[in-house]
Amino acid sequence: MQENWVNMSESGLDRLHHVAISVTDIAAAVEWYVATFRCKIAYQDATWALLEFENVGVALVLPEQHPPHLGFATPTAHKFAPLKRHRDGTESVYISDPAGNAVELLSPESCAAAYQD
Amino acid sequence: MQENWVNMSESGLDRLHHVAISVTDIAAAVEWYVATFRCKIAYQDATWALLEFENVGVALVLPEQHPPHLGFATPTAHKFAPLKRHRDGTESVYISDPAGNAVELLSPESCAAAYQD
Repeated sequence: MQENWVNMSESGLDRLHHVAISVTDIAAAVEWYVATFRCKIAYQDATWALLEFENVGVALVLPEQHPPHLGFATPTAHKFAPLKRHRDGTESVYISDPAGNAVELLSPESCAAAYQD
Repeated sequence: MQENWVNMSESGLDRLHHVAISVTDIAAAVEWYVATFRCKIAYQDATWALLEFENVGVALVLPEQHPPHLGFATPTAHKFAPLKRHRDGTESVYISDPAGNAVELLSPESCAAAYQD
């Protein structure tokens, strides 16, 4: 898989790698999003799913498993705290914005590597 | 302005046009996001702001003004209900996903036209 939404930045601006929203039933949510939009199921199990849109990933998560969050690929991610490597190969750290929203900062290199063919 | 995140779909998948998250203080949130990420301020007033990232817009909204939501550009937007035209030229309808998350469906043509130079 090598889609637009995992490419490195071309504009000099950071990319939103994925947005994660809370749902109550993963299977029902996946069914609805796939029926409503032109998107692909990149991953799905009983606890979360990742939908691929033209420009970004949309993660559907159970609130007891993950907080809803925005996941940005930014080269300064490592400056906030040591990055943690995840099962999909991405490396990131979670912080909060001033309003308390969870924000994930991902290493752009790890995002590109994780989703190469 | 003619950025990647307002281009029409190239992959056959729908685009996430913007994600809107709730914050408690627009100015403080804008300051934090601009300091934390490489992004541009596309619009800002006391009630909301729009930040431009490489691939998508991030709207910062006061919860009493707008619900947090995902705004997708999809050619079938008009099939859900008549589209409402907004001040920025985009035309959309709000619906809810099965978990109750607010989802905005925007006409892709109106998104492209609204953000042309």
